[in-house]
Amino acid sequence: MEKRNPRDYAQEWNLLMPLARIDLIQGKSSDYKKAIGEVIYEAMLAILKVPTNDRFQVITEHPAEGFLFDPTYLDIQRSSDCIFIQLTLNEGRTVEQKQRFYKAVADGLYQRLSLRREDVFISLVEVTKENWSFGNGEAQYVTAPQ
Amino acid sequence: MEKRNPRDYAQEWNLLMPLARIDLIQGKSSDYKKAIGEVIYEAMLAILKVPTNDRFQVITEHPAEGFLFDPTYLDIQRSSDCIFIQLTLNEGRTVEQKQRFYKAVADGLYQRLSLRREDVFISLVEVTKENWSFGNGEAQYVTAPQ
Amino acid sequence: MEKRNPRDYAQEWNLLMPLARIDLIQGKSSDYKKAIGEVIYEAMLAILKVPTNDRFQVITEHPAEGFLFDPTYLDIQRSSDCIFIQLTLNEGRTVEQKQRFYKAVADGLYQRLSLRREDVFISLVEVTKENWSFGNGEAQYVTAPQ
Repeated sequence: MEKRNPRDYAQEWNLLMPLARIDLIQGKSSDYKKAIGEVIYEAMLAILKVPTNDRFQVITEHPAEGFLFDPTYLDIQRSSDCIFIQLTLNEGRTVEQKQRFYKAVADGLYQRLSLRREDVFISLVEVTKENWSFGNGEAQYVTAPQ
Repeated sequence: MEKRNPRDYAQEWNLLMPLARIDLIQGKSSDYKKAIGEVIYEAMLAILKVPTNDRFQVITEHPAEGFLFDPTYLDIQRSSDCIFIQLTLNEGRTVEQKQRFYKAVADGLYQRLSLRREDVFISLVEVTKENWSFGNGEAQYVTAPQ
Repeated sequence: MEKRNPRDYAQEWNLLMPLARIDLIQGKSSDYKKAIGEVIYEAMLAILKVPTNDRFQVITEHPAEGFLFDPTYLDIQRSSDCIFIQLTLNEGRTVEQKQRFYKAVADGLYQRLSLRREDVFISLVEVTKENWSFGNGEAQYVTAPQ
């Protein structure tokens, strides 16, 4: 395998670097959870233009007593299949990109898992790009040219 | 039920939209955890002026080896009942509102559960309002008038 | 024990106040997890200059199906021992401090646990200092002089 020069990533580093925390009710199958992770990743690739393979996700199941949401907030009817997706990512996405990302995730989960679009709750937390280390104790963006 | 026009929420959307992560030691009763969620929600309603029903909370129990805190930091004496509350919310609260919120949560947990005020740790993470989708793949604030 | 005046902390409060979330694959020993927490805390003390005893950490184990990462992103070869460290802290650290912190954590985990440096993923989320309450329902920085 040809080793890619870190400098080649300089532009891509502006793009994203995300960590996803996914919370849902306990009892879903492994395939179900795996598909959730894939749909979110695919939406990040397609809409947020993340570099291929930039996938870091934590999926946590909770008993009903530890997973609380209002079933009608904003007149959206939620079911027990409701999931929370919280993404930490680099600042710089436009409002329009965020809108398209929300839609892509909700559409993808519906098509793949018949998960109702009403049940998809998404929260973004934006940070600056020096706030990541992807391994080796280095801030990968800093070692690349500006 | 009369369906409310999303535009009616335009002003409210400036107010909050929170996601709460609550971490505590394992072994508490369902009622105890439920009460924690309610107290936090009630403080958000009363002090942070969140819209009614805007409640999204994840409560996670941990074994002692996975839940670590200093028992005396800042000369505050913490017990094994210590809880961490981390709230992701829209930017724009004043310092005074935050102070009143911290007090309302600590007072409420003491009154309701006899949880010592010393054991309440709170962390806020502020984001912008386009960073939320409450369902249907939409950024609800964006579809409303400015 | 002599009680320290809260005002003495006024300068220190500018320094950090962190909450660490540590996620890893399930099945590690208590000692292993404990050592991870210690290494991160020691790096915060040494590099980020946090006040002694400012330690609040949640360590969560996950089954493989709930803990997903790309094994080669940025040409870094990750193993099943990969851990995610997400730190919420006060804004104000320099890029150079962040770089030294990443290195100290990766070096420390390697020396203490033989954890490969490639397996250490770190994400920082920065907040303002009025966003913390360490107990008693107070925003500790606010009660101190400016």
